[in-house]
Formats: sequence, structure tokens, C-alpha cells
Amino acid sequence: MTAPLAISIGDPAGVGPELAAAAWALSDAEGLPPFFVVGSARVVEEAARRRGITVPVCTIKAPDEVADCFAGALPVLDLADLPYTPGEPDDAGASLALNALAAATGLVRSGAASALVTGPIAKSRLARVGFDHPGQTEFVAEACGVTAENAVMMLAGPSLKVVPITVHVALRLVPDMLTTELIRNRTAITAAALARDYGIARPRLAVAGLNPHAGEDGRMGSEDADIVAPAVAMLRAAGIDAFGPLPPDTMFHDEARAGYDAAICMYHDQALIPMKALDFDEGVNVTLGLPIIRTSPDHGTAFSLAGTGKARVGPTIAALRMAGECAARRALA
Amino acid sequence: MTAPLAISIGDPAGVGPELAAAAWALSDAEGLPPFFVVGSARVVEEAARRRGITVPVCTIKAPDEVADCFAGALPVLDLADLPYTPGEPDDAGASLALNALAAATGLVRSGAASALVTGPIAKSRLARVGFDHPGQTEFVAEACGVTAENAVMMLAGPSLKVVPITVHVALRLVPDMLTTELIRNRTAITAAALARDYGIARPRLAVAGLNPHAGEDGRMGSEDADIVAPAVAMLRAAGIDAFGPLPPDTMFHDEARAGYDAAICMYHDQALIPMKALDFDEGVNVTLGLPIIRTSPDHGTAFSLAGTGKARVGPTIAALRMAGECAARRALA
Repeated sequence: MTAPLAISIGDPAGVGPELAAAAWALSDAEGLPPFFVVGSARVVEEAARRRGITVPVCTIKAPDEVADCFAGALPVLDLADLPYTPGEPDDAGASLALNALAAATGLVRSGAASALVTGPIAKSRLARVGFDHPGQTEFVAEACGVTAENAVMMLAGPSLKVVPITVHVALRLVPDMLTTELIRNRTAITAAALARDYGIARPRLAVAGLNPHAGEDGRMGSEDADIVAPAVAMLRAAGIDAFGPLPPDTMFHDEARAGYDAAICMYHDQALIPMKALDFDEGVNVTLGLPIIRTSPDHGTAFSLAGTGKARVGPTIAALRMAGECAARRALA
Repeated sequence: MTAPLAISIGDPAGVGPELAAAAWALSDAEGLPPFFVVGSARVVEEAARRRGITVPVCTIKAPDEVADCFAGALPVLDLADLPYTPGEPDDAGASLALNALAAATGLVRSGAASALVTGPIAKSRLARVGFDHPGQTEFVAEACGVTAENAVMMLAGPSLKVVPITVHVALRLVPDMLTTELIRNRTAITAAALARDYGIARPRLAVAGLNPHAGEDGRMGSEDADIVAPAVAMLRAAGIDAFGPLPPDTMFHDEARAGYDAAICMYHDQALIPMKALDFDEGVNVTLGLPIIRTSPDHGTAFSLAGTGKARVGPTIAALRMAGECAARRALA
């Protein structure tokens, strides 16, 4: 039997705790696999209460207790009995979020949990308590012994999977950050992960151009011919079904999407604009290239929504479901 | 009664002639207003025949003859009796395309026709016969006495209207091309045109940021704060309901789109990726800021499809319908 999923609580003052509770309340209806929260039983109970939902909590000492109690209560690996106020982050909460992330990662690394789902944190808050990574992805990658350039972000929704080759940088910096090796490496990692964790034997990868019309023979920029095209050629030579560079504006409609499994995009908004236009509120952030499975709901702490009951549980459910599906495939492999 | 719409034939070797004929064949079913082709009766008849549709043609000398014959035949203002081969453009065809564009523009300028719908041309072909404009938009603008910077391209589909502030340039050049005045001017022109031609009394204009997350307080680029935000402030001070800069990736889903009438985008793919993801094959290219109404189907000559019957008529019908709707609003004003 597959081990349960571990969900790290995220910042207790954010929407993470209440969404973990809300997902448990819907786990039967949604057919979610067993999971447990790494964090604080008190915070989860309180967050559920404020959201107006009844969620019994069972405190566990190890993931092997999850199977016995998940049907009747949300299992919580209790790291701290913490007072907290929704929407008002503090250092004690940031420490809990960091400890929960580290503990959950370790449990998945050890095999005691089958996949990691990370609740939302506020990076600036965690930095105050010693977190020195750009984000959770880099923290988890390091914990797994993977360099940041080999940890690849994919956003996956029901209609579209996208991989932005560059992510959180000013648009002005993108053209000079793109290299043939960066595109080749991240696309190859994507191909391997789609085969291993998504059951796609020979993934079809549509590689977007950087420029309008993919540069139109150099009339609108040289990067598509000079940087992107050689990466595609190298990938194909290695037996990977990548193709492009494609004109970015005509690769995201229904018919075009039917021709590939994931779109490799050159920058943040080239990837996230179509993904969120088509699958808003259903996108899952996945880290590819790790020895473990890691997903997260594609939103932040949303401090202003915490405790109001307005935060949507859809992304958390989608992240848990996808983590469970990937874990089940690895268990069968 | 509103004058008929004029559609210029475009390159005779492209899909323009057959799509004009196909649109006429569907004009009853689609409820299109009367229109006529400026071009060649022989080319239109032959293109319809090759497409496998029966389209009687009536040759007219002036637009006031359209009303009498449109119900039974496609009216054509015949400029040339031209042999042509689909998919094989030549100089005689390029000359016809250019003459048709000039003549159709003149008829709309004079009021004899109520709006201009331009069929697709191949710019490089037309350049060989003396066309020295980047595209039809600039030609029409000059013919109307409007400078290129005041002729604003809008792509309009059923789900979304977008205005790219910069258009056919390498992505690398975009940040330095954007100025507060360029954004202010094009947004103001858009606001005026939506009020005049689209019946939107006080248009709501969502202005996208340039950078991911609209720069996130300068952490990912300074242009959103330094260039885009001041333009929005100037527009608001002028009584225009513009707002932004908005994070580009979260402004195109259903709920977000309900909050505005058009999205002002900083570059080609920021505008065209969401438009074509949502409304592929239904987009109309509109030129705002002209004294006349001008639309076109949002595709090129598609020489490789010409004569095969595969070119879709949807965009031409959408361009004719939108031109007719705008013309009707001006007629009532």
C-alpha cells in the first residue's frame, strides 16, 4: 500500500491550515488518497473552526498511523502548540512553517510519506527566522541534493501543462538569461518526469519561441534561431520529441494543445498567462527533477483572506490529487 | 439606410477571394449586412468554383448598386480581369491587391461605403510593386491623414479585446520602446473608440504590467512603477477608467475579464497569447483611431491553403459582422 501524502502546514497565519482542513473534509467526495498535515494540531483545529467546518483532528507520531485514522479525522504530526491570528504573521509562525517544511521533506525523502505537498509560506517572513532560499522549491531541491538549475517548475492544469524556462525575473533580463543548455536541460528533465510520474511514455514537448512569430526568420529577434532552435535540435538528437520554436501566440488554443503534452515556455508570463486564462484556480505547481514528488497549490499565503472562509480549496485538492497520482505511478513502477 | 461594407480582395493567390465568396454564401444564415468586394470578378468567381461553392457574382460600378443585387449575387467592383493561380503570387496579383486596398479605402473615406474590411496581403509581395508601408494598417492610416502612432491595433474576439502597445518587435526591444506617453496615447484612443464604435459609454481598461507580477514593487523590473503606472495615473486624471499595472498572468481568466472591456498589453504575445488561447479563429483585427471603420480577419494570405477549401471563413465573417455593427452605431450617432 502506498504511504500517505505529507502536506506541510505553511504559514499558520495564511490560508494553508484552513485549506488542508477543508481538503480533508472533501476527501471522500473528491476521492483523495490519505494524507496528513505536518504542523500544529491546534492551528489546524482553530483554522477549521474559523472557516466554519467541522474537522476532527488526530495527532499522530508517525505516518504509519495515518491509515487507521484518516477516515474519521485529519491526521496531524504536531510540531508546536501555537497561538496564532489569521492574517497576522509572526516569527513563531514562520518558524513553525519552516520546521514543518523541513520535517515533511524528510519524511518523504525517507519513504515514510509518498509525496510532498507544500502549503503556502511568505518568503520574507521565513527569511527573518533563518530561511535563506528564494522559495520552497530551492529549499526542497537542496534537501534532496539537487541543484537549483535541475529543479524545474511545471504548472499543470486540466487543460495545459507549462514549464517556464526563466521564472521570476524582469522581462528585460530574459533574452540574455536564455541559453541553449538551459533550455535543453530543463526540457530533458521535463521529458523524463512526464514519462516517470505522468505515465506519458514519449512526451511531446512544444517549445515556444521567445519573440513574436518565433522571430519570423530573424525579422523580430535572433534568439529563436540562435538559442532556442539548437536546443530543440539537441533534444531531438537525444530521442526526445521536442519541436519548435513555435510562434507563441498560436500554440495554446484547443487544437494546438492536442498536439503536445507540455509547453516549454521562455518566460514567466508566456507560460502563466495561457495556463491561468484556461485553468485559473486549478493549477498545480510541480517541481520536476527531484528524487521525490513535490506539488503545491498555485497560490500564496493570502493573509488577507485567512480566516474569512473565502479562500478556495480547489488548488489544494488539485495539488493533493496530482501528488497522489504521481505517487501511485511510482509505486507501480 | 447604412451604406454597404467594402471588402478589399487581398492577394488573389491567397485565401482572400474565396473567403469573401464563402462569407457571401453564408450571409443570410449569419445575418451579415450587405457588402461588396473591391477586386476582380473573375478571381472571385474562380476562387469560389475551386472552393466548391456556387457564388453568382454581379459586377457593379458603384456601391449604391449593392443594395439591389446583394440578395442574389456577390457584388464586385471589378478592377482587373486577371488570370491567377492559388498559392502562386505574382506581381500582377500584388498590383491588384494594392489597387483594391486603395480604392476600397477611398470609397469608405467618401462615405459611399460604411466600413473597410481588408483581405489578406503579403507585404513582401506588395513591396515589389511599390507598397512602402509596414502593413495595410499604416497604409490606411496615411490615406486617412492619421500618423502611424495614432492608429491603434485592437484584436477583438467574443471573450476578450486586447490592444498591444508594442507590436511586431523583438521582445528584447520592448522595455526600451515603452514610454508613458505611448501607453497614455494608445489607451486614450482605445477608450474613445470603444465609446464611439462599440457602444461602451465608459470603457473599463485593464492595463497589464510589463514584468511578472507587475514587477512586485520593483523586485522584478522597474518599468511598471516608472513607465506604466504614471500613464494610468494620467489617464485616470483625464477621466478615463483605466487601472493597473496589473499582474499579467491573473488578468485573463473568466472572472477577471468580467471586470474590464479591453486589456491594454505591453507587447505582442502578452496580448495575443490569451486572445488566441480563448478565441482562436474568431479574432478580428481592428484599427482604432481612424476617421473610418476598418477591420480585417486575423490571419494572413495562407497561400498554402488557397484553393484547397480548407481555409476557415469564420474570421472573415467575424470581421464583416464587427465592421457592420460599428458602422450601424456611427450611423445612429
